[in-house]
Amino acid sequence: MNNITPSCVRNDVQSRIARIAAMLQAHGIDAMLVTDNVGLYYVSGRVYAGYALVSSDATVRYFVRRPNDIEGVDYIRKPEQIVDMLGYCPAKLAMQCDSLCVNDYNRLCSAFAQAQVVDGSAIMRSVRSVKSSYEIELMRQCGLKHARAYSRIPAIYKAGMTDVELQIEIERLLRLEGCLGIFRVHGESMELFMGNILAGDNADNPTPYDFAMGGAGQDPSIPVGANGTVIEPGHAVMVDACGNFNGYMTDMTRTYCVGQLTELALKAHQLSIDINCRLAAEGKPGVEAKRLYEIALEMVQQAGMEDYYMGHRQKAGFVGHGLGIEINEAPVLAPRSRDVLAVGHVIAVEPKFVIPGTGAVGVENTYVVTEQGMDCITLAPEEIIPLG
Amino acid sequence: MNNITPSCVRNDVQSRIARIAAMLQAHGIDAMLVTDNVGLYYVSGRVYAGYALVSSDATVRYFVRRPNDIEGVDYIRKPEQIVDMLGYCPAKLAMQCDSLCVNDYNRLCSAFAQAQVVDGSAIMRSVRSVKSSYEIELMRQCGLKHARAYSRIPAIYKAGMTDVELQIEIERLLRLEGCLGIFRVHGESMELFMGNILAGDNADNPTPYDFAMGGAGQDPSIPVGANGTVIEPGHAVMVDACGNFNGYMTDMTRTYCVGQLTELALKAHQLSIDINCRLAAEGKPGVEAKRLYEIALEMVQQAGMEDYYMGHRQKAGFVGHGLGIEINEAPVLAPRSRDVLAVGHVIAVEPKFVIPGTGAVGVENTYVVTEQGMDCITLAPEEIIPLG
Repeated sequence: MNNITPSCVRNDVQSRIARIAAMLQAHGIDAMLVTDNVGLYYVSGRVYAGYALVSSDATVRYFVRRPNDIEGVDYIRKPEQIVDMLGYCPAKLAMQCDSLCVNDYNRLCSAFAQAQVVDGSAIMRSVRSVKSSYEIELMRQCGLKHARAYSRIPAIYKAGMTDVELQIEIERLLRLEGCLGIFRVHGESMELFMGNILAGDNADNPTPYDFAMGGAGQDPSIPVGANGTVIEPGHAVMVDACGNFNGYMTDMTRTYCVGQLTELALKAHQLSIDINCRLAAEGKPGVEAKRLYEIALEMVQQAGMEDYYMGHRQKAGFVGHGLGIEINEAPVLAPRSRDVLAVGHVIAVEPKFVIPGTGAVGVENTYVVTEQGMDCITLAPEEIIPLG
Repeated sequence: MNNITPSCVRNDVQSRIARIAAMLQAHGIDAMLVTDNVGLYYVSGRVYAGYALVSSDATVRYFVRRPNDIEGVDYIRKPEQIVDMLGYCPAKLAMQCDSLCVNDYNRLCSAFAQAQVVDGSAIMRSVRSVKSSYEIELMRQCGLKHARAYSRIPAIYKAGMTDVELQIEIERLLRLEGCLGIFRVHGESMELFMGNILAGDNADNPTPYDFAMGGAGQDPSIPVGANGTVIEPGHAVMVDACGNFNGYMTDMTRTYCVGQLTELALKAHQLSIDINCRLAAEGKPGVEAKRLYEIALEMVQQAGMEDYYMGHRQKAGFVGHGLGIEINEAPVLAPRSRDVLAVGHVIAVEPKFVIPGTGAVGVENTYVVTEQGMDCITLAPEEIIPLG
C-alpha cells in the first residue's frame, strides 16, 4: 500500500481507477499515462510531480519526482525510467493529448517506444464528468461556503467604491471562508484571477476569453472583468467568483444593485431565475445537453430578450457547463453539444443578460443531476440584492 | 494599420517582431505561428483569442477569434482559414511546441499541410529573455509597487494570526496597490495562488512544485505554501508574493520575524544578503548563468551552511531565474544551465535557507543585467523585519 492517497479518499480513488480501466478495456487500450496536475489529483487524491499509469486491469502505479517524502511509490528522475521499472511497455497507451504539450509528448513517445500512442483525453473527460457521492459532497461543502461568503457582500460595500475595490474585498471574504483562490480552467486560452465582478456598462465590453460574460479588465495583459468603474446608482453589479474550497468548486453568480434598476433589467433577471428553475426540472439523465440550451433560448425568444442574452455586443455560445476540479468540464450546454446528461453530472447554469446602461443581471447556480432532475447546491437568495 | 496594439507599445512590438524575424532567418525558418496567451501578448501588446503569424521578413498578421471589436485585423472562426487568407503556406513553420497541446498541434499541422513544422519554443524563449527598455520600465514600476505593498506588512500583522490569515491581508495590500493577481508560470506543472507565505517549520515541508521553497499548503489539491501555522515568537515568516502589476512582474522576497530568531537563522539571512550582493556585482554580460550558481554555492559551502541552503528536507536545484511576463523565463541560474547573461536579461536571485525550528530566511531581488553588473529593481530594506 502506498501513502500517496489521503485515507479519506482511498475508496473513491479506487473506484475512479476502476472506471477509467473499464473505458480503457472498452476501447482496447492497455493503459493511460496521466500527466497533468488535474489528472494526477483525480487518480491519486493529491497533486504531485510525476506520472500515474492506470492499466486496463484497474491497477495503478504512481511514478513520483517530487515531493520526496511519499512512501510506497516509485521514485523517478525522468520518464525514461518508467518502462524499465514496469518491466514492460503497454502495447496501446493513451495519453492526455488535450493538455500535454508537444515536446513532452514527443519525449514520452520515445520513452514508450514500443507503444502505439492514442489520445485518452475523451476518456478522462468522460470519467471525470460523472462525480461520485464523495466528490458531490465536496462540492456541496463548496456551495455552502460560497453562499456564506456572498451573503457578506452587502456589508462590505461602501458608496463610491470601484468594481475593483469591491472585488478585492470579495476576494478577501472568500479567502477568509476557506477559498483556496486557485481557479483551474482547462486549456491554455482561458485565464481569470479569482472571479469576474462587473458593474454597469463594463459588462458590455467583449473579452478574448470563452467565459459567459466579459469586461475590459484592468490591463491588456488580462483583458477581462472589473476595469475600475465607479459603482453608481442604477448599476447592476454581477458577482461571479471562485468557489474552490477543497480542490473541487462550485460556480455561482448573484446580482447586486445600487439604487433602482430599470424594468428591463428586472425582467431579464427574473427570466434568468425562471430559466434556472425550468432547466433544473428538465435536466434529467438521458436528456441531451443541447436540449437544455434550446429550452433556455426558446424562453428568451418568447420573452423577446435575445438582444441582451449571454452578452450584448459579443455573445457567449453556451448557457451552462460541467465543472468539478476544473471550471469547464463536460457536459456543455451548447447548441452543438453531443453530451447527454447522466446521474452524477454537475452542471453550472448561467443564463445572463447584459442591459445597456445597467450592466449584467442574472443568476448562476451549480446543480447535481439526479433521476428527479437537477439538485441545486448553491443555495442562496436569487433576487437582486441591494448594496449598502 | 491595425489597432490591436495599444499605441504606447507599438514601437516596442515592432522591434520584438524584428528580433523574432532575425532569429527565424538565422534558422532558415519562414514564419512563427504564435499560439499561447503569453506569446500573443508579447507580439501584439494585448491578450486575444487567436493566432499571430510572424514572418521572417519582419511582418506580422493577427488572426483573431475574440474579442469582436478590434479593427484592422483578420477575423477567423477557425485556424483552417489562415492559409487561405494568407494566400500561401509558409514552407518551414515554427510552432510553440513547449506550450501547444498535442491535439491543437495536430490540427494546426493539418491546417498548414504544406509546411514543414519545427519547434520554435527556444526562439521565443530567447527573444523574450532580453527585455527592451520599455519592458524594463514596466518591471521597474512593478518593483516600486511591490516594495510599497511589502512596506505595509508589519502594520497588518496581529498577534496570534495564522500564516493563511496574514497571507490574505498581504494579498489585499498587493491588490490595493494595483497587483493584477494573476501569476503566470510557464508549463503545466507549476501552480501557485498569488504567493508563498511560510511561517516556522512549514517552510520545511516539501512540495511537488519546482519553486525555491515549499510548504504543505491548505489542501492536497494545491500542496504548497501556508498551511494554517499559527505565527509564534521565534518564527521567521518568509513573504514571496505576486508582483504582477502590468502584465510584467517582479519577484521579491523579504523575511519577517516575531520575537528573536536564532543566531543560525540570522547568519543564514546575512549570507543571503551577501550572496545577492556578490551575484549583483558578478552578473555581467557574457558571464555563464551556471557560474553565478557556483559562486553562490561556494559562498554557502565556505560558511558551512549547505544543510539549510535552498531547502532542508528537499532542496531546489537553482538559485535564480529569468522572469518577465512569466515567473520562469531564461536565463536559469542552475548547475547545468547553458544560458549566458546578456544586457536586458532580468533575473530574480533567491538564495534562501530553511532553518529547522525557525523557518525560511533570506531575501530575493529582481535585477536587470547591465554592462556594469546587475541593477536591483526591488529596492526595499533587506534586513529581517519585526512584525507587530
